[in-house]
Amino acid sequence: MSKKYQVVGIGNAVVDVLSHVKDGFLAENGIEKGIMTLIDLERAAQIYAKIGPSIEISGGSAANTIAGLAQLGARTAYIGKVKDDQLGAIFVHDLRAQGADYEVALSPASHDAETGRCMVMVSSDAERSMNTYLGVSEFLTPEDIDSAMMADAEWIYLEGYRFDGPDSHAAFAKAISACKGAGGRVSLTLSDPFCVERHREAFRDMIRDHVDLLFCNEHELRAMYQDEDLGVVLRLAAAEVDTVACTVGADGAYIWRDGREIHAPADPVKIVDATGAGDLFATGFFFGELNGYDTLTTGRMGCVAAGEIISHIGARPEADLKALFAKHDLL
Amino acid sequence: MSKKYQVVGIGNAVVDVLSHVKDGFLAENGIEKGIMTLIDLERAAQIYAKIGPSIEISGGSAANTIAGLAQLGARTAYIGKVKDDQLGAIFVHDLRAQGADYEVALSPASHDAETGRCMVMVSSDAERSMNTYLGVSEFLTPEDIDSAMMADAEWIYLEGYRFDGPDSHAAFAKAISACKGAGGRVSLTLSDPFCVERHREAFRDMIRDHVDLLFCNEHELRAMYQDEDLGVVLRLAAAEVDTVACTVGADGAYIWRDGREIHAPADPVKIVDATGAGDLFATGFFFGELNGYDTLTTGRMGCVAAGEIISHIGARPEADLKALFAKHDLL
Repeated sequence: MSKKYQVVGIGNAVVDVLSHVKDGFLAENGIEKGIMTLIDLERAAQIYAKIGPSIEISGGSAANTIAGLAQLGARTAYIGKVKDDQLGAIFVHDLRAQGADYEVALSPASHDAETGRCMVMVSSDAERSMNTYLGVSEFLTPEDIDSAMMADAEWIYLEGYRFDGPDSHAAFAKAISACKGAGGRVSLTLSDPFCVERHREAFRDMIRDHVDLLFCNEHELRAMYQDEDLGVVLRLAAAEVDTVACTVGADGAYIWRDGREIHAPADPVKIVDATGAGDLFATGFFFGELNGYDTLTTGRMGCVAAGEIISHIGARPEADLKALFAKHDLL
Repeated sequence: MSKKYQVVGIGNAVVDVLSHVKDGFLAENGIEKGIMTLIDLERAAQIYAKIGPSIEISGGSAANTIAGLAQLGARTAYIGKVKDDQLGAIFVHDLRAQGADYEVALSPASHDAETGRCMVMVSSDAERSMNTYLGVSEFLTPEDIDSAMMADAEWIYLEGYRFDGPDSHAAFAKAISACKGAGGRVSLTLSDPFCVERHREAFRDMIRDHVDLLFCNEHELRAMYQDEDLGVVLRLAAAEVDTVACTVGADGAYIWRDGREIHAPADPVKIVDATGAGDLFATGFFFGELNGYDTLTTGRMGCVAAGEIISHIGARPEADLKALFAKHDLL
């Protein structure tokens, strides 16, 4: 009997605030290029006052993945905390409108923190640098994890970023226990090399003990296994999980499974905004996995979905992903 | 001695909520295509629950015009009411970040209404249909009009949409009086044919008595002067104001000035989202006017700026407008 959900994502629920920045802006304002940095509300206000006109789009790494899967018709749900404020309403609307379930209680308006937001600063080279104010998203606790939902999921998908915060590890442990106890499987994305630095041991334990499918990029994997040789770190990861799906930018992805390495090439694409590339790779990969495609096709679906997201501003898909898969002869 | 401001805009301060809708959606939900309809908060919530994932971008007709002028380096300010809430903060940020002054006191968080928003539903033919919840924007009163600012403006730019609301006429009258009393000039945009229907007599009086520069499109002008013949209504308007700038879609614009008609052609452009075409036409036209260009060049600047805005989602310019003018040999 199939479970109610195919994939349930757990992550930081944030609204992206997208702006274009001139060369020099990042350095002048002490913003590290290409990575995600956590900031407090005061710093968020300082930076917001300096960036240009922006657009707001729902974001959040795992939420982007789930939104893409929902667009593809997969049965999905998402867990991440927003507040009962205007940005929270936007976040919940956009997920539900895409077809994903969202059942988390909104943090009351009396909560000190606000709905989280991520200032995505896109440079002229289309690289994005992110400064994130987590807001109430940081306060996800085990109480927010519905065990019945976890048990009713074929896969849970854990966002590495969500390891930042007081009760995150306990929340993840509860989710894993409920999911695995009911025969489900666990996937994890490493999210960011600096996030890996912050939580290397906890990630390591989780990967070894619970993770069936690991998403990462080459930089995150090197940070995780502390070796510069991609071949080496891929083998180290592959020894610990069933499947490793590691993206390598314009070269596509390497997938390790059953002791074999498969290279899924990416198509050339004009990059407008790199935000969400890894998130949508996971969307495409899950779609292939859920529907029993071979490993190469599954990896290619990841690459095609990632290619869609980097061809426009924002990390939620605009084009019909299934039509794109068909166009690339993947269905 | 030049005044502090070249153009001060007064209008409805709203954040646009942009979504793509399938054919049939508008009819099924009783939404009139291609025009702006005012809705209350309850109806806004109903429609919002039905539209797909959206993106939020600051909007508001006159605010779009002012944002474009600020990008072009003009000395600008904007008056329109938002609340002290998250959407209000977004609106104010985006205007100031573009370089426009915004000095209106925010409506307190205790106000029943929220910051206004406009659901912009883009159909597959790139036509946009707008449902607007005005929120606190509707409550602009004469007290919100700073007479000193009006006196320090070469031009004030009045948004026809802002005629909807209890104290609007009085607010506009105060603005006009202060501006004209100090030797400034008055421009008005008719905004929308149904808006013209609602306020024809008030518009008529204002045009005849105070307006120096009238912005409109052909549909609005026909509604205003109640004749189907564009040549006839153009002449009727030209008899009442110094300059009439009337856009005619893909054909560009007709400008009447000093008893002569000038046709400014538009360049072919792939329309992605028609939102803001008229607003940015006014931006380009003002730029030509402020900098002493001839009428044809001034009209062409309007067409080029309008062409930029309809080539992408949202009604705030993304490209460098001055560079576009140069590319079209207008500078």
